[in-house]
Amino acid sequence: MDDKTRIAIVGYGNVGKGVHHAILANPDMEVSGILTRDPRRTKDQLVDKVKDVFSANSIHLIEAIANRTDVAILCGGSKQDLPRQGPLYSVHFNTVDSFDTHDNIPQYFKMMDGVSSYHDNVAVISAGWDPGTFSINRILAESFLPEAHAKAFYGLEEKGGLSMGHSDALRKVEGVKDARQYTHAIQKSIDMMRNGENPDLTNREMHTRECYVVLEKDTPEERKRVDKKVKTMKTYFEPYDTTVAFVSQKGLDEVHKERAMAHDGLVIAASTTGEGNNASLEYRNTFASNPEATGNILVACARAAHRLDQRGEKGAYTMADIAPADYNVHSRDYILEHKM
Amino acid sequence: MDDKTRIAIVGYGNVGKGVHHAILANPDMEVSGILTRDPRRTKDQLVDKVKDVFSANSIHLIEAIANRTDVAILCGGSKQDLPRQGPLYSVHFNTVDSFDTHDNIPQYFKMMDGVSSYHDNVAVISAGWDPGTFSINRILAESFLPEAHAKAFYGLEEKGGLSMGHSDALRKVEGVKDARQYTHAIQKSIDMMRNGENPDLTNREMHTRECYVVLEKDTPEERKRVDKKVKTMKTYFEPYDTTVAFVSQKGLDEVHKERAMAHDGLVIAASTTGEGNNASLEYRNTFASNPEATGNILVACARAAHRLDQRGEKGAYTMADIAPADYNVHSRDYILEHKM
Repeated sequence: MDDKTRIAIVGYGNVGKGVHHAILANPDMEVSGILTRDPRRTKDQLVDKVKDVFSANSIHLIEAIANRTDVAILCGGSKQDLPRQGPLYSVHFNTVDSFDTHDNIPQYFKMMDGVSSYHDNVAVISAGWDPGTFSINRILAESFLPEAHAKAFYGLEEKGGLSMGHSDALRKVEGVKDARQYTHAIQKSIDMMRNGENPDLTNREMHTRECYVVLEKDTPEERKRVDKKVKTMKTYFEPYDTTVAFVSQKGLDEVHKERAMAHDGLVIAASTTGEGNNASLEYRNTFASNPEATGNILVACARAAHRLDQRGEKGAYTMADIAPADYNVHSRDYILEHKM
Repeated sequence: MDDKTRIAIVGYGNVGKGVHHAILANPDMEVSGILTRDPRRTKDQLVDKVKDVFSANSIHLIEAIANRTDVAILCGGSKQDLPRQGPLYSVHFNTVDSFDTHDNIPQYFKMMDGVSSYHDNVAVISAGWDPGTFSINRILAESFLPEAHAKAFYGLEEKGGLSMGHSDALRKVEGVKDARQYTHAIQKSIDMMRNGENPDLTNREMHTRECYVVLEKDTPEERKRVDKKVKTMKTYFEPYDTTVAFVSQKGLDEVHKERAMAHDGLVIAASTTGEGNNASLEYRNTFASNPEATGNILVACARAAHRLDQRGEKGAYTMADIAPADYNVHSRDYILEHKM
């Protein structure tokens, strides 16, 4: 292909590396440059050769890359990075990001819509799997089964799924040196959903939380104190049946090595059609590497952003606002012929 | 809601009735009229009161309903009905149909695009589950996992799924009085897909076909002849492991009563991300009533067609060209706040 979509990768952590891998797997894409906090460190970690690895600290360098880029994929975190990176990059680039603080999405959308519209750019926000592909499936399922309430479950595999947010929350508890949290879906509730019972499930009925904690000072008193602190933590752990296992750093590293970055999830909606006939829709993903899978989705969104921009569109989009064909490498004619 | 989307139902077989049920389940929708071949018979079968049930034979009556309709849902078959109904109704209405002869979709799209564009209407073609929601999932999965080849399986439940097309093919065999065909997915192949083996599966490796046949004259010679005729039928049965059971009409009716209109299916795509990490995406639907479920999907497509028309769009669309939010009853703001 002659006209590849030129992608700037902003941030080179696990998701940034996942994006880089994904670009290599898509023949119509290429990397135009990488912008990071620490270009020297990034150069040592590159998954493939890239000439221009620049400091994200320089507006000049950002603009230099913008001139030969179609879409910038912002791979930073939702709390600290994206609220500041988003508007900055949206001035210069079409952007894709994975802003995932559900409660703040409307506000973030408004900000990004304002900046991107002004600068004639497209900003695809909150891409990934939840928010992202799971949002699409909630919206589609409730459109096709209007009486259903779609619900998402995470950590269906026996080893559960690593939650970054909950791991962070554990690490912020005083006396905790390191920690990880694995989320487990409760099978009984999934079965109830499948049976079309449409139960009004509480958090406790949907997931359990399994914590591995390394203490600064591992004493019986300290274990008791931290255990209580964790299990009573509002929002994060109190609404769930939570187990806390105290382990050595070596023990934690072993758990992590085994379970790695895997995560999986399920969106399920069940209801009836017509005269009380059961109907259910399920969407499931199983990823051995959560950040790499997110990278793959972000790259498909970059293709869509580029196409929207080429059609003269501008402003903020979520994945709910994008037609499936716009993510796909193939033309509309090819899709009509081979994929319908 | 004040401004309901006004739907004309064209054809009142199983899918037409399913559409009618679905409209009742969607508070923003109402029936503006029904057009059928035999209005008197239709009036006896109505799932809910409708004043205007007209003959689809009269252009005057079609135009009369068009004047107070936002979208016509065409519930006819792909072989005889839609190629003629499609262009006729597209002159007067925004339309939604479930044209499902995969090989002819590009041609049908071209025809409907020409008529609907000329008349400033929107035509959503080939909606339903395959083509339709399964197409969306093939396209999305191969966008997010570019090395995957998404495959669809039908009839995962033990009782399999009724195939209308294959039942028709059986009934056309000389000497056959009545027949039904249930499709069964081969679990071993699904497991191979799930394991990321991306096998190059033949038809025979994906599905088996279970036929129930009532003969005009049930003799051993006739059984032998029809059995051979069925199993060697190109495209329909020859490429599959096919079983043929000869039953009485009463026996067939019992099988049908038990299995009814249920059907289910699965789209599965598996590949790897980044450095060889397994990734898989699955979409599954389970419908106790296939035609009612199709009706539900068509009604959501009618909502999208109406919105596209209101935004000044025109021409033919498939579900691959429609953004998920356009199917949903809720506003963009509501979706941003509650469904992402």
